[in-house]
Amino acid sequence: MADLSRLSLNQATTQNWSIQQVVDGCLRHGIPSVALWRHKIAETGLDEAVRIVQNAGLHVSSVCRGGMFPAPTADERRARISDNLRAIEEAAALKADSLVMVVGSSTEVPIADARQMVRDGLAEIVPYARKLGVRIGLEPLHPMYAGDRSVLNMTKQALEMASPYSENEVGLVLDTFHIWWDPDIFEWIPKCRGRIFGFHVCDWLVPMPDMLLGRGMMGDGVIDNHAFRLAVEKAGYSGPIEVEIFNQKLWDTPGDEVLALTVERFTTLV
Amino acid sequence: MADLSRLSLNQATTQNWSIQQVVDGCLRHGIPSVALWRHKIAETGLDEAVRIVQNAGLHVSSVCRGGMFPAPTADERRARISDNLRAIEEAAALKADSLVMVVGSSTEVPIADARQMVRDGLAEIVPYARKLGVRIGLEPLHPMYAGDRSVLNMTKQALEMASPYSENEVGLVLDTFHIWWDPDIFEWIPKCRGRIFGFHVCDWLVPMPDMLLGRGMMGDGVIDNHAFRLAVEKAGYSGPIEVEIFNQKLWDTPGDEVLALTVERFTTLV
Repeated sequence: MADLSRLSLNQATTQNWSIQQVVDGCLRHGIPSVALWRHKIAETGLDEAVRIVQNAGLHVSSVCRGGMFPAPTADERRARISDNLRAIEEAAALKADSLVMVVGSSTEVPIADARQMVRDGLAEIVPYARKLGVRIGLEPLHPMYAGDRSVLNMTKQALEMASPYSENEVGLVLDTFHIWWDPDIFEWIPKCRGRIFGFHVCDWLVPMPDMLLGRGMMGDGVIDNHAFRLAVEKAGYSGPIEVEIFNQKLWDTPGDEVLALTVERFTTLV
Repeated sequence: MADLSRLSLNQATTQNWSIQQVVDGCLRHGIPSVALWRHKIAETGLDEAVRIVQNAGLHVSSVCRGGMFPAPTADERRARISDNLRAIEEAAALKADSLVMVVGSSTEVPIADARQMVRDGLAEIVPYARKLGVRIGLEPLHPMYAGDRSVLNMTKQALEMASPYSENEVGLVLDTFHIWWDPDIFEWIPKCRGRIFGFHVCDWLVPMPDMLLGRGMMGDGVIDNHAFRLAVEKAGYSGPIEVEIFNQKLWDTPGDEVLALTVERFTTLV
């Protein structure tokens, strides 16, 4: 099973903690990497966030998140591009492995048009990411989020969107929660070789308590996270493995309990 | 837009009505076809259900539903096969266009194995369906149901499962709620030519009130049902179009109001 040296705590798992608290928690539990969210970076301030993770000697596996390209007006789309440029600067300052993209969706834009807006948005931001040495990680989101969060819903589709760019510029972030159901997933993961920038684990609970805040801890649901780890490693990925769990019950649990459980499940089940 | 002669009321839309009430409602609103559910057929009795729809001169677009093949033990799987044979008999007695399959899922069976159990189950029941002249309609369900209701989640996958059988035996039932997000759907629908046994419309609400009982009336969400109707017709489908809406709020609304709204939305938006 997975070694603790591979574990990265995605800050979404301990939503109530500040960056300082997350970093201190990682140190207490021997977790070497962390993934930071932009609303938390804004709370702490970028310079201070950089100082905290550097002082702790932690590696930043990703910054979450850029994206959110589709919008009905050109002005709104431009504002979102600008925000993505700021996200690229934050990922660069934190020396993150990648900036994760949740590409967005809009009830005011037909889905095919929204997908084109994502391609157009990427074309606008990739040159700046290249200049700052930041890799763009496209995360396919579960199809149940196609109406409100992301029109990028399949691994195949993410690979197609990444393909106009070099392997060092645009790649994929694969999260088992989003891709576990895909009947062709174990054919697509090998095709992602060279473009896997991140790998996330958690679980799919049955029944699901909530579409957004009902993700499960590994082992509590139906996903074979171990099989996915082996598949992404066979496809060449050897980087950090993020545990990212949006779950209200976990958020209401003391952070140190959550981290102890995360470490236990990660090292015995992933 | 769609002509009323194409409309079929799927009984799930008026969950509180018996078969007699659904049939009377269809007559009052000029709806020529109906889709019946097996728990309602059981309530009324099969012979009586047949008598009611025949007396009314209604067409039965489908019987819902067979399937539910995956189970951890051979005994359970056999019991489900038997139940599917009864479902085939009911579809035959009602002269339904097809028996709709919701193929099932099991938290106790890995998803790849469950998919094989579906293929095996189909192989067991198709000969009997052939003998009774019943067409088996495989309905891909939205990936958010992969853990509890159906491991058949893509149109491509349904076509692959149908392909060992003749075009008159096993085909697809396409429901816009389940397939609207698929980035390749308008490439796959033409490939379904000859195997489209049914077409369902409703809408995807944002935000979604409930994963099971939160489907929307056409026009209340983000699905372009008209585009899907044109696509299935271009692929050769000219049969009834079912309106199937699982929605608690609609179920709490008087049935005649629901039918009036269904007719209005169907004839102006589909």
